[in-house]
Amino acid sequence: MSSATSQGARRLKVRPLTQQAFAPFGQVIEARPGESFEINQGSTERYHNLAELEFSGSAARPIINIFRGQAYQDALLALMEYHPYGSQLFMPLNQRPYLVVVAPKGELNEDEICAFLAQGHQGVNYAAGVWHHPLLALEQTSDFLVVDRAGDEANCVEQSLSQFIQLDY
Amino acid sequence: MSSATSQGARRLKVRPLTQQAFAPFGQVIEARPGESFEINQGSTERYHNLAELEFSGSAARPIINIFRGQAYQDALLALMEYHPYGSQLFMPLNQRPYLVVVAPKGELNEDEICAFLAQGHQGVNYAAGVWHHPLLALEQTSDFLVVDRAGDEANCVEQSLSQFIQLDY
Repeated sequence: MSSATSQGARRLKVRPLTQQAFAPFGQVIEARPGESFEINQGSTERYHNLAELEFSGSAARPIINIFRGQAYQDALLALMEYHPYGSQLFMPLNQRPYLVVVAPKGELNEDEICAFLAQGHQGVNYAAGVWHHPLLALEQTSDFLVVDRAGDEANCVEQSLSQFIQLDY
Repeated sequence: MSSATSQGARRLKVRPLTQQAFAPFGQVIEARPGESFEINQGSTERYHNLAELEFSGSAARPIINIFRGQAYQDALLALMEYHPYGSQLFMPLNQRPYLVVVAPKGELNEDEICAFLAQGHQGVNYAAGVWHHPLLALEQTSDFLVVDRAGDEANCVEQSLSQFIQLDY
């Protein structure tokens, strides 16, 4: 995010987050009706294996973290990032919506940046290499459980945008 | 849980869940004050690497699931279980409290069973081999993000209790 003025910013429309629309970028983590089975003598429904986790590189392993993100204040988006050696999963812990901004793997094409509004029951798992904006909580400071990769290599590549983006939602 | 009457049940007092009290059984997953660092140009606090994940056996890998658990209705506890090949992490997604009932690894000693009241911002990660009761949501049906292990071997061992347990909380 940047505090620059909106002069010259490109506007990008935010769409609802669905598994189908997000498929090129990873998975939506949610309890979809009819896609569970009973465990614990019937007292629990298990929605099984919802993410394609990826961990590569030297001494690669999954780690569990909490990210506490400040709320997005309609500022301008100024950069994107990706993680070459692992997927990164965000699950909201406060049932509040948040924004998801992504672009396909490979050389960043700013015309292919997409924005989604995630509901408070929906997590996302970014596939390794997928461009995404850092966490954009909404309404107020919010916590997310994050499953990502630790290992020997540095695992974050950032790139500034040639033109600021302002989200319409 | 069982629908048997409480006749002959042993009563077990439920204690608050703290990292220190839970340490013999695994980790409490929570955002502890002063244990974070800033990322994303200062807009996010990262509470880093909060769980000791374990995955062993053939084709072992972590998987992400949602468990939707019915609320515990003061029924009697009748069994415990453990997972020999992996840790199992529960993170509440609805900010509601839940019950955690555990016993040390090894042959089950029913006198060593402990019960904790977890708050809605606290997750737990059971170490591999630690005895625990299946999910005990409170108040109403609740969702949890679960990080556990997939692999070739069966990974759940159950044992009936010699005497029912009734929780005091």
